[in-house]
Amino acid sequence: MPGIGPVSATRIAYYLLDRKREEGLSMVEAISTALKNVALCPQCHNYTDEENKLCALCESSKRKASKALCVVETPSDVVAIEASASFNGTYFVLHGHLSPLDGVGPNELHLNDLDDLIKKAEIEEVILATSHTVEGDVTASYIANMVKKHQIKVTRIATGVPLGGELGSVDGNTLALSLNYRRDM
Amino acid sequence: MPGIGPVSATRIAYYLLDRKREEGLSMVEAISTALKNVALCPQCHNYTDEENKLCALCESSKRKASKALCVVETPSDVVAIEASASFNGTYFVLHGHLSPLDGVGPNELHLNDLDDLIKKAEIEEVILATSHTVEGDVTASYIANMVKKHQIKVTRIATGVPLGGELGSVDGNTLALSLNYRRDM
Repeated sequence: MPGIGPVSATRIAYYLLDRKREEGLSMVEAISTALKNVALCPQCHNYTDEENKLCALCESSKRKASKALCVVETPSDVVAIEASASFNGTYFVLHGHLSPLDGVGPNELHLNDLDDLIKKAEIEEVILATSHTVEGDVTASYIANMVKKHQIKVTRIATGVPLGGELGSVDGNTLALSLNYRRDM
Repeated sequence: MPGIGPVSATRIAYYLLDRKREEGLSMVEAISTALKNVALCPQCHNYTDEENKLCALCESSKRKASKALCVVETPSDVVAIEASASFNGTYFVLHGHLSPLDGVGPNELHLNDLDDLIKKAEIEEVILATSHTVEGDVTASYIANMVKKHQIKVTRIATGVPLGGELGSVDGNTLALSLNYRRDM
């Protein structure tokens, strides 16, 4: 498991055996419930707790009314954007990015479902929030071309210098893009 | 000195006394030459090695021909932007940002010199590359208002998610701005 090596694992095992047998058993129960019951929302492909039912975000009429769809790579990106309280539309989770060498193509990311959703939900703007890596950018371009066929607006989240940062602490490529994508004042 | 506490200072002192007396003396010479001779370029206010003479960047006819001026807070920001090889115009170094509580106003940043330079050099675009902090943003707005009076284009470097970053590792405010300043694809 990430962040737990052999030493930590041993320490946790003895801790549970020595002092927390009951808590350990209820933890096992909770993990097993989660693993058995957490399903994917049939519409946005985010995690949800009931199978074959839309998740809370997809159900929300307020969210649907905004007609904006944000495409992200992972469920944790949805959590990050929701925490920033800056987006009021619905999501589509790719669960990865295009990576032909690893056998991940448009089918593995279920881009046909995305295509259907855009048409069905009468989306007016698709915001591509895949990460700013080579794979993320390629995935964004691919989806942009797909969406543009329907004459729908496609945007990409801004690349640039993060808040609070000095220019010297930002890498050169980000700085170059930040100059390149400068905005009018 | 930044990064050198009492323990490091003592260690350096004994190191120089014990083994490197001559190197120490030549270092002293170099520092004293630098401190005596490094002056400010009368045009861009960046550091330069000859007093009352334009620096290499201000002298360059290629740089002047681009008619773009980049306003930064510190000389190290010039180094960072030059290292990114993404800008081909001239600079103006503020040596700080507006901070009324610390007694730093437009005069301390020599904004009148900036105003004169913009007119004299027939600048066509002023790019504000102050840092993305409250003070940096206020400074940028102040200069933007000043420059707009001359009907000259003013832009601000982009705020957003840096390259290579996952959305989850970016702070919420940056993520919000990154959605806010999304660009068309």
